[in-house]
Amino acid sequence: MKIALVGFGVVGQGLLEILRDKAAALKASGFEATVVAVATRSKGTLYNPQGLDIGQLLAAAGDFQQYPDTAGLEHGTDILSLIKTCNADVLVECSNTDLQTGQPAIDYCYAAFDSGKHVVLANKGPVAVAYRELVARAAQAGKQLRFEATVMAGTPSIRLAMQALQGCTIREARGILNGTTNYILTQMEGGMSYAEALAQAQQLGYAEADPAGDVEGWDAAGKVIILARALFNSSITFKDMDVKGITAITADDVREAAAAGEKWKLVARVTPDGGSVQPLRVKLSNPLAAVSGATNAITYSTDLMGDVTLVGAGAGRLQTGFGLLSDLLDINRGV
Amino acid sequence: MKIALVGFGVVGQGLLEILRDKAAALKASGFEATVVAVATRSKGTLYNPQGLDIGQLLAAAGDFQQYPDTAGLEHGTDILSLIKTCNADVLVECSNTDLQTGQPAIDYCYAAFDSGKHVVLANKGPVAVAYRELVARAAQAGKQLRFEATVMAGTPSIRLAMQALQGCTIREARGILNGTTNYILTQMEGGMSYAEALAQAQQLGYAEADPAGDVEGWDAAGKVIILARALFNSSITFKDMDVKGITAITADDVREAAAAGEKWKLVARVTPDGGSVQPLRVKLSNPLAAVSGATNAITYSTDLMGDVTLVGAGAGRLQTGFGLLSDLLDINRGV
Repeated sequence: MKIALVGFGVVGQGLLEILRDKAAALKASGFEATVVAVATRSKGTLYNPQGLDIGQLLAAAGDFQQYPDTAGLEHGTDILSLIKTCNADVLVECSNTDLQTGQPAIDYCYAAFDSGKHVVLANKGPVAVAYRELVARAAQAGKQLRFEATVMAGTPSIRLAMQALQGCTIREARGILNGTTNYILTQMEGGMSYAEALAQAQQLGYAEADPAGDVEGWDAAGKVIILARALFNSSITFKDMDVKGITAITADDVREAAAAGEKWKLVARVTPDGGSVQPLRVKLSNPLAAVSGATNAITYSTDLMGDVTLVGAGAGRLQTGFGLLSDLLDINRGV
Repeated sequence: MKIALVGFGVVGQGLLEILRDKAAALKASGFEATVVAVATRSKGTLYNPQGLDIGQLLAAAGDFQQYPDTAGLEHGTDILSLIKTCNADVLVECSNTDLQTGQPAIDYCYAAFDSGKHVVLANKGPVAVAYRELVARAAQAGKQLRFEATVMAGTPSIRLAMQALQGCTIREARGILNGTTNYILTQMEGGMSYAEALAQAQQLGYAEADPAGDVEGWDAAGKVIILARALFNSSITFKDMDVKGITAITADDVREAAAAGEKWKLVARVTPDGGSVQPLRVKLSNPLAAVSGATNAITYSTDLMGDVTLVGAGAGRLQTGFGLLSDLLDINRGV
């Protein structure tokens, strides 16, 4: 399988580390990958139809000029042209998410489908903004659109719903889909104020300098939109949703919940009729209550199985890289 | 897909109810099933190469004489001969589990493979007793051996490990794999004595009149052996395992744990080197702590993803029937 990678930050590098470190085991299970192209807007592009060296790519991640000038190497191609003309079987899109426009990644996806390539996304933008159009374009091309890594990183939230629970009707999904806010709430249970917990999350790299996307609920809301598309083919947008973050939760609120045997959680919820992101008090008997720190979780309510809950990592270099790998393995197996 | 069903208790009936009630939705997703044979040791056999009527089968579940004598119907055939000669594509084995010998179900499986049929099991015996032989015989026949329903009913514990986490190395699985004991422990947290909680579990049908298989840990141990085979190709037997039940846990033990912010859980554990079933005190931050009542859970510890936990039903008519359906859908899709 020949891969073209757009975006080469921590997630793309995570995937390449896995492909390098697990090459032998993956080959034994029938999967051999060659990275033929890497493209970023800030560092330019590298393309070799014979394949690029993964070790050298990781070494040159900060500066593509460091990549050795081997036979067949092309660089500096326009990204869109490169996607159209390269010999990859799959486009792996893991550049930065733009939840408003989904661009330029949507155009990259169209270019991939139209030139006969599958698309695997870690970038949430295209699925959130143009899901139906992408599904139609993929079907037209006879290629696959996969996006496991967009929700709960490599924890198989999407394939649990779309594959393992096939035959059940899913009526609702609800979960903890943002690790930063769950980390902050967990630290507040330990006695910290909101401001202290946020500062610690920023120190640890969980929260960004401008934490609004996380703490005001928009990151989780983006995942609600993706789940709404994938599970219910719903056309819900941010405007249709109640989105509330955790900035108003005080140490007193957390103490009060604890005294009642409950915990505050930022709960994302999606049904065929809509979606929401809201801080809620959940009972200790709720599986979501035991999800602490930066961990994520999702509960699917189904007709035949009742509630099925999946708990796991929601971010991380290797964890998100593994989400991309999962999709590549499925495409390779024809699943 | 033509199905031969061996065993027609609650699980077999659960599968047929789903096939009846979801026929239209399943057909729309590309799956059409016909039940051609039903065989039990107590009630005899029914076979019609043209297909049996599912509604009539469910009505005749208590007494096969009630099934209408339609054209092409054969009954009273020996089960082994029926498996060999019937025109089914898949044998679904859901007769009673014998964890000691695995028989007669192992012979049924061999007969199915040797006559070109896939095998789907809810019966734990064959996998626990003869996993390697069954895998070899399936490979020789070019057919599939599937057993999702043997661990946590239809909650996709097996396909999470074998499919969704493919590419990760699983180092350990640990979980709550017996609902009866978890129900009893949960009721004890509410203040009941062990004897009261057991009596209630028996009233509700969770525990049998002779509860030893559940409360002494053997049911969970059978699932440990199945996971050991499937995850690690391990040949561990009951004799190699520490198996301890919950009969010695007192109301005082439960109170003491609660005072320390912990809960008693009957934890089944399996690694490449062995397995165990033991009551353990787990912290409230452990996802297993939030698993209350008859619910089950399993945590896979992996290299790339860290811990991934799945929580869901571990028993039930439709829930176990759905486990069988999941395997049939995968076989139908060629997964």
